[in-house]
Amino acid sequence: MKLATLRVNGSTRAVRLDGDRLVDLGATDLGELFSRDGWAERAAAADALRTYPVEGADFAPVVPRPSKVVCVGLNYKNHIQEMGRDLPQYPTLFAKFADCLIGATDQIARPEETTEFDWEVELAVVIGAPVRRARGAQAEAAIAGFTVLNDITCRDWQFRTREWLQGKMWDSSTPVGPYVVTPDELPGGVRPRLDVKLSVGGAVMQHDNTGDLLFDPVSLVEYISTVVRLNPGDIIATGTPGGVGHARDPKRYLTGGERVVSEIQGIGRLDNTVAEEGTA
Amino acid sequence: MKLATLRVNGSTRAVRLDGDRLVDLGATDLGELFSRDGWAERAAAADALRTYPVEGADFAPVVPRPSKVVCVGLNYKNHIQEMGRDLPQYPTLFAKFADCLIGATDQIARPEETTEFDWEVELAVVIGAPVRRARGAQAEAAIAGFTVLNDITCRDWQFRTREWLQGKMWDSSTPVGPYVVTPDELPGGVRPRLDVKLSVGGAVMQHDNTGDLLFDPVSLVEYISTVVRLNPGDIIATGTPGGVGHARDPKRYLTGGERVVSEIQGIGRLDNTVAEEGTA
Repeated sequence: MKLATLRVNGSTRAVRLDGDRLVDLGATDLGELFSRDGWAERAAAADALRTYPVEGADFAPVVPRPSKVVCVGLNYKNHIQEMGRDLPQYPTLFAKFADCLIGATDQIARPEETTEFDWEVELAVVIGAPVRRARGAQAEAAIAGFTVLNDITCRDWQFRTREWLQGKMWDSSTPVGPYVVTPDELPGGVRPRLDVKLSVGGAVMQHDNTGDLLFDPVSLVEYISTVVRLNPGDIIATGTPGGVGHARDPKRYLTGGERVVSEIQGIGRLDNTVAEEGTA
Repeated sequence: MKLATLRVNGSTRAVRLDGDRLVDLGATDLGELFSRDGWAERAAAADALRTYPVEGADFAPVVPRPSKVVCVGLNYKNHIQEMGRDLPQYPTLFAKFADCLIGATDQIARPEETTEFDWEVELAVVIGAPVRRARGAQAEAAIAGFTVLNDITCRDWQFRTREWLQGKMWDSSTPVGPYVVTPDELPGGVRPRLDVKLSVGGAVMQHDNTGDLLFDPVSLVEYISTVVRLNPGDIIATGTPGGVGHARDPKRYLTGGERVVSEIQGIGRLDNTVAEEGTA
């Protein structure tokens, strides 16, 4: 299944893609849907009583108010090795908050306070069941599906101090969507092997395959749920491959009006324009 | 006013301290209360129609589900200087999540996965109005009040990678409460000058004054709200003074059964016992 949260008449609805229609699933968003027992069977069985056209659909963040967004630092093996680093023993984790998230075709708010506004396309895991210290099959079953996330970052703020958070938690900066695709639809299932790509103004900047992840989605659910419970709708961004603007020579940052397309095979694409944000 | 969130019959209620009684304010918790326009006047005026005794009160986290918990690293000037460091230009920020929080007298869950379980008493700001890029008087007015937070940390996990988050976001680790005290009741107001103290088993480990903060509460609201909107109920933990277990010689960590008391003058005390948590 391909699932999404659609903006409809000033509110939102959880929907399932069915051809060129989006079928209403009787929940306000995917966070609410995933918190219901047996959501997958019920979503698959939902009749097309109320539908919306895919064309012109206005996608909200797949989960508008996740209780957590946990992001992983460097996680693509070939990129770690090309940087001459050893493979790390543990994943590096940092946070975003719900207020950072925007929909798949929303404008990315570029704050006036940065001069180093950068991209990071990532495969993101969406949690479909409450878990703590999940292992093996339980961790696999806790994965509702996968989506695309662009971990937009203000590099100048990221490196102001030794913690990255202040470069990562900018308001309305981080597109996520358009669909959560269940693992059964993807090659590799809960450890998907998918082409991942990001372009700016049509020029490909990042291109890799999610099969190269050092810490795969299941091991991340195991690791993070050791520390803290994961709730339905929580999002884990699994890290970005090489090709970010900050690591290019010369460095390359986003400016107002540029179009950033983030795409993962079999899931979908984020298509966002950067909008200069005025300060109050 | 001293405000709190009280556990009552399997749910919670927002209350105001009135002598030896807690007056029901008609909201389920302080997060809900602070999201209402004119909450301060209405809370002050609320009649004591429904009250609960202070004695034996079971306090929930002051805000059980804040949309953000933003924490500040090293922020006490004398402690920074005694460590031989220069005063930083910017605050170091990291995150916690709602699932980390516990009430003022709840047991602190000590996970089996750590051997370096440490304390950090902190003055915490609770936000009382939605703000973005707040400055001056607007930032001051966005502070609903202050509470006590013990930023319990697994040092071994904190230093596994270069980001602190995985040492900071342990489930049910972080007491916060018992009261949110409005600035008008505190010496120094929105920049309070209060004795802050933490003891373990009766032995004082940390003792300082919040007047020594390098980045004061108002400047933190200004700085953080530049990056991301702050919502009613959001919590900012302002950093801890010297005396943590990890910096002692010899190092000193918490074990099961120990009692940790975190106290800030004029606000109240957290009184928590460390409970060894079994792994599943």
